[in-house]
Amino acid sequence: MSKYRVGILGATGTVGQRFCQLLENHPQFEITALAASDRSVGKAFSEACPWKLKTPMPASVSEMEVAPITPSLDCDIIFSSLPSGVARETEETFARAGYPVISNSSCYRMEEDVPLLIPEINPEHLALIDVQRRKRGFDRGFIITNPNCAVMSFAPPLAALDRKFGVKEAIITTFQAVSGAGYPGVASLDILDNVLPYIPGEEPKAETEAQKIIGKFSDGSIEKADFTVSAHCFRVNVVDGHTASVRVNLNETSTLEDVIDAMRSFPSAGLHSSPENFIEVREEPSRPQPRLDRNNGNGMSITVGRLFPDNIFDYSFVALSHNTIRGAAGAAILNAELLVEKGIV
Amino acid sequence: MSKYRVGILGATGTVGQRFCQLLENHPQFEITALAASDRSVGKAFSEACPWKLKTPMPASVSEMEVAPITPSLDCDIIFSSLPSGVARETEETFARAGYPVISNSSCYRMEEDVPLLIPEINPEHLALIDVQRRKRGFDRGFIITNPNCAVMSFAPPLAALDRKFGVKEAIITTFQAVSGAGYPGVASLDILDNVLPYIPGEEPKAETEAQKIIGKFSDGSIEKADFTVSAHCFRVNVVDGHTASVRVNLNETSTLEDVIDAMRSFPSAGLHSSPENFIEVREEPSRPQPRLDRNNGNGMSITVGRLFPDNIFDYSFVALSHNTIRGAAGAAILNAELLVEKGIV
Amino acid sequence: MSKYRVGILGATGTVGQRFCQLLENHPQFEITALAASDRSVGKAFSEACPWKLKTPMPASVSEMEVAPITPSLDCDIIFSSLPSGVARETEETFARAGYPVISNSSCYRMEEDVPLLIPEINPEHLALIDVQRRKRGFDRGFIITNPNCAVMSFAPPLAALDRKFGVKEAIITTFQAVSGAGYPGVASLDILDNVLPYIPGEEPKAETEAQKIIGKFSDGSIEKADFTVSAHCFRVNVVDGHTASVRVNLNETSTLEDVIDAMRSFPSAGLHSSPENFIEVREEPSRPQPRLDRNNGNGMSITVGRLFPDNIFDYSFVALSHNTIRGAAGAAILNAELLVEKGIV
Amino acid sequence: MSKYRVGILGATGTVGQRFCQLLENHPQFEITALAASDRSVGKAFSEACPWKLKTPMPASVSEMEVAPITPSLDCDIIFSSLPSGVARETEETFARAGYPVISNSSCYRMEEDVPLLIPEINPEHLALIDVQRRKRGFDRGFIITNPNCAVMSFAPPLAALDRKFGVKEAIITTFQAVSGAGYPGVASLDILDNVLPYIPGEEPKAETEAQKIIGKFSDGSIEKADFTVSAHCFRVNVVDGHTASVRVNLNETSTLEDVIDAMRSFPSAGLHSSPENFIEVREEPSRPQPRLDRNNGNGMSITVGRLFPDNIFDYSFVALSHNTIRGAAGAAILNAELLVEKGIV
Repeated sequence: MSKYRVGILGATGTVGQRFCQLLENHPQFEITALAASDRSVGKAFSEACPWKLKTPMPASVSEMEVAPITPSLDCDIIFSSLPSGVARETEETFARAGYPVISNSSCYRMEEDVPLLIPEINPEHLALIDVQRRKRGFDRGFIITNPNCAVMSFAPPLAALDRKFGVKEAIITTFQAVSGAGYPGVASLDILDNVLPYIPGEEPKAETEAQKIIGKFSDGSIEKADFTVSAHCFRVNVVDGHTASVRVNLNETSTLEDVIDAMRSFPSAGLHSSPENFIEVREEPSRPQPRLDRNNGNGMSITVGRLFPDNIFDYSFVALSHNTIRGAAGAAILNAELLVEKGIV
Repeated sequence: MSKYRVGILGATGTVGQRFCQLLENHPQFEITALAASDRSVGKAFSEACPWKLKTPMPASVSEMEVAPITPSLDCDIIFSSLPSGVARETEETFARAGYPVISNSSCYRMEEDVPLLIPEINPEHLALIDVQRRKRGFDRGFIITNPNCAVMSFAPPLAALDRKFGVKEAIITTFQAVSGAGYPGVASLDILDNVLPYIPGEEPKAETEAQKIIGKFSDGSIEKADFTVSAHCFRVNVVDGHTASVRVNLNETSTLEDVIDAMRSFPSAGLHSSPENFIEVREEPSRPQPRLDRNNGNGMSITVGRLFPDNIFDYSFVALSHNTIRGAAGAAILNAELLVEKGIV
Repeated sequence: MSKYRVGILGATGTVGQRFCQLLENHPQFEITALAASDRSVGKAFSEACPWKLKTPMPASVSEMEVAPITPSLDCDIIFSSLPSGVARETEETFARAGYPVISNSSCYRMEEDVPLLIPEINPEHLALIDVQRRKRGFDRGFIITNPNCAVMSFAPPLAALDRKFGVKEAIITTFQAVSGAGYPGVASLDILDNVLPYIPGEEPKAETEAQKIIGKFSDGSIEKADFTVSAHCFRVNVVDGHTASVRVNLNETSTLEDVIDAMRSFPSAGLHSSPENFIEVREEPSRPQPRLDRNNGNGMSITVGRLFPDNIFDYSFVALSHNTIRGAAGAAILNAELLVEKGIV
Repeated sequence: MSKYRVGILGATGTVGQRFCQLLENHPQFEITALAASDRSVGKAFSEACPWKLKTPMPASVSEMEVAPITPSLDCDIIFSSLPSGVARETEETFARAGYPVISNSSCYRMEEDVPLLIPEINPEHLALIDVQRRKRGFDRGFIITNPNCAVMSFAPPLAALDRKFGVKEAIITTFQAVSGAGYPGVASLDILDNVLPYIPGEEPKAETEAQKIIGKFSDGSIEKADFTVSAHCFRVNVVDGHTASVRVNLNETSTLEDVIDAMRSFPSAGLHSSPENFIEVREEPSRPQPRLDRNNGNGMSITVGRLFPDNIFDYSFVALSHNTIRGAAGAAILNAELLVEKGIV
């Protein structure tokens, strides 16, 4: 079987680089277009891109010429990691031109007719694609999205709990890695020997996206899950890996064993990039830790630990995910694999 | 007036070093004895002590000979920063021998007859000293304590709120500096590019001490404040300064302005080391930060920021204090200044 | 005596902030003008400036209105910390308009008629001011400069050695703090868990400035010291404090004791901001360290350690200075104090 | 072919962990014994070992019972990563009992009859094994060693230069990662926002080992290469990856192109764990960097950059290697692969 040809919008950024890294040797996709802003267009990718990943730039992309971000790319699928400012208009343009757009940007996530997907949790939300096409007059193209990188750490355990016991409310305090801000992103003078108590624009996303993800598709729309989230988002001196401290109230009484089991038994999506364990629950006293756990499941697992009854809420726990893999490029690739499996592309 | 002669137990440790630094040129106290464990005894302090502070070791102590930890030190007041393991027995021995013991250790903090003091909040708890002397058969000596370093960041704003509106419950998530673990303390391999979700023994202290501090002295004992605390304690890659993310429910309705005012108007204790503002409330979006705010009020102020209504609780905010100054040595010195002011020593 | 009124060009930058911090309560100078680029002009300094220092912004400047960088500032002396791009033309304009310009920029440092000053080493280079005025047609104004921040760590010990034994050549390898790059400066993704082996433009400065500083003024010009420097400049994960590993060959044979003595006995300049010890030599095995030694002498001392005979060169040692104090704002202020002492302003 | 059964002495330490990680799925070796100190003996490895690597502990070792360090282990080859204090006697005991001991310890490296091996450079030094057996009365057993982790970064480029042009002398300044000190190793308070100018015991190794490695085997002994090394060893805030700044004088004149070519063309050893490029030379201005280059060649390549003519020496460059892979466990495994290839085990 020949591979789907994929194009990456915003290829030179930190998430764009992860796409290149994760798609090297992918059995279903091959990169045929790397698009970026004007100052990169026409250059070799190796020259245009300030590569910051620990593995070398794949040879398959290093000599590729950077293309402009226009809907004439030679590819079947678009991965977009454009900055929010330009994503809204550009992604619509590509969808209207017939491309499936798999977006890591925030601008369409909360639109009523756009799926906000985690394949393990809500694959049925793909049904919104038809709604979207009708509403926006798209023909073959469409837009799907993956969650904010902080949400990706705590939405899966909340989904596991909601499915079994119903989630009533959740208090989230995050410890977010600097790679989440892109490059150059966080200034070293702001984070060395320091903690930043504010990430612009982050808390509203963290307080709203999980309810849509965990919501039910019915009658052509998503009925959001009925719980409240309070989020405090902090930046800490970590390269990769977002950690979230979570307290949760449930609708039904449950034992600690049942809570652990609800998370551990949450099924994998069975896709190529799916981790064996979607949610890994660790019982050692000092886990998860970003440096030790962000790469679990090749960066695609959510790791949970310190799961205990809480003094005020029903349970408290710590959840961690790799913010530029499961929280960004890996999430989008998994979404693309889901599209393939469902025959949508 | 001649100065009180003070002795430091555990003088070579991180908190012991802070005592030396903060007492240099103190108008009321002068160090006359530095006591430490056997392997340091007999050495010059400069030789025995692995000094880690940014200001040089004071000349007044560098040549002093380290004494053994026995109650024959030539001093009027004892500051103790002994490890918990040895503190219980040693501090009692000194108190029984007639010394006022001002302890930074955790072992006596929650004892019914031992004051857990923050001079701005509960100076009337000093009345426990008489209770303690009677109960334990101490003659002139006694033991007083200061709070855990994490508690010191959030107990003051909770006290301010409790006094005006009544605190019902509080959710705390901490970001604690490595200096809180002493030296050598946290291994660099554990904290570089990392966050530790567990600090042994910390959460129980964080969940119980504030209620005693904010409690009322009546009929010879402390009636603890009637609120519940849930605490998650994390270690982050910061040298000094503990940050706490707090959500709080109050007993009475209050406006944001009143909440801010309750904190800002909390009076200073007016002692030599008291900061002008006990609680400093900042309104910039990204404060407090450990590197920028830990030295407010010479490390003795509590800095609060990001004070907003919360989605689930009444209010949320971030509180920060310098863990080895206001959270340890500075707290003990302030307690000693209170003893002097009240004529107890 | 009334104070000299000083204006700061580039006041909102990292070095500009240091000027504000160090000039608070200065007995000879008071800030009367803060000038910065167009987007700051007209705003209150507290609003225009992203303050990053550990002590709060002085009240005396926080409400001051930021002025444009034009030579109509109401002040007697100009401190300039402008970026190199704009410094050349602007500083000349101010000098031509009659202002003494004390510059921290690199653009005039190596000009033949501009003093590159370290008051302890080459105060006689001030004689160049007359040469400069004649050559450039300045009337009352002039430009003086201070060295590059990396040079400031090793030029003083080299000067001490040159004066006694003659320096033949020196190999320098630096470990430079991120604050040296200004704000936002070094991206956190570039320096967390990392070392950068290249600082653009730094090595040429490090290889040439010391020879001019240590040179002799004679017949209206500086005869540069006759030694060669090889410099490798690295950026490391440190907030403040540049460390240099130095190997040096001398023209005359000397004992280790003589070498240490040459450094220790190098006289202070006796100015208000002069440290008691210009060069502090430490003999403990693991000093100097940036976090422990950068504040020696209020950040104005050079700290030397690990001074030993070398396998290949005559001696090797490690030298450290605070890059934004002694290596920038503090150096300029000391130069201004020298101007006052010499009656030049 | 069945695999060689290997035992690891000091299995729970940082280097022991790397052995476990790197030997997972190795085609020639399988771990059959994990030995450690008394407090670990009898425990499951997963319980005894404070695992600090980013990939999970291999399932094949996690349930293995930790054995005592006695020469009755069921294995064909011993990898030793014992602390220097105990390594001398223990390794001899194992060799005398008939085991090939592949040691990462420093104690035997400079012994006249013990090979200090880098398979790409000096495989002919294996001839010392016969000398050693005769001298020490070993029968089947023997001891071979790999270099100090800092030496591993600069010895390969020096070997490449020595072979072509002759090395006369080299000045080395290192930037060493904290993992080089083991666990707990470097205290976080010593390295956060800091640089340590001293690593106990390191400089003598760095000044002597390369000459033996690059030496010639003749007449039953190693004639050391005739050049001098001066080394300054620093610890920096990096998890993994030792960087060395090198200046070198050569015996013969050479062009920059020839120097680059000498490094790039140095042949691989062609063993299972050999990197494709033993020495990778990069020409971008800001490479090598530990975070970006330590994993080149799966952590087994040496990366060189900033290779230029020097002001004082002939050439200067920066060399980097992964200190716990190529500088420790990976080096020992490569040595074992060499033993297999040469039919010595």
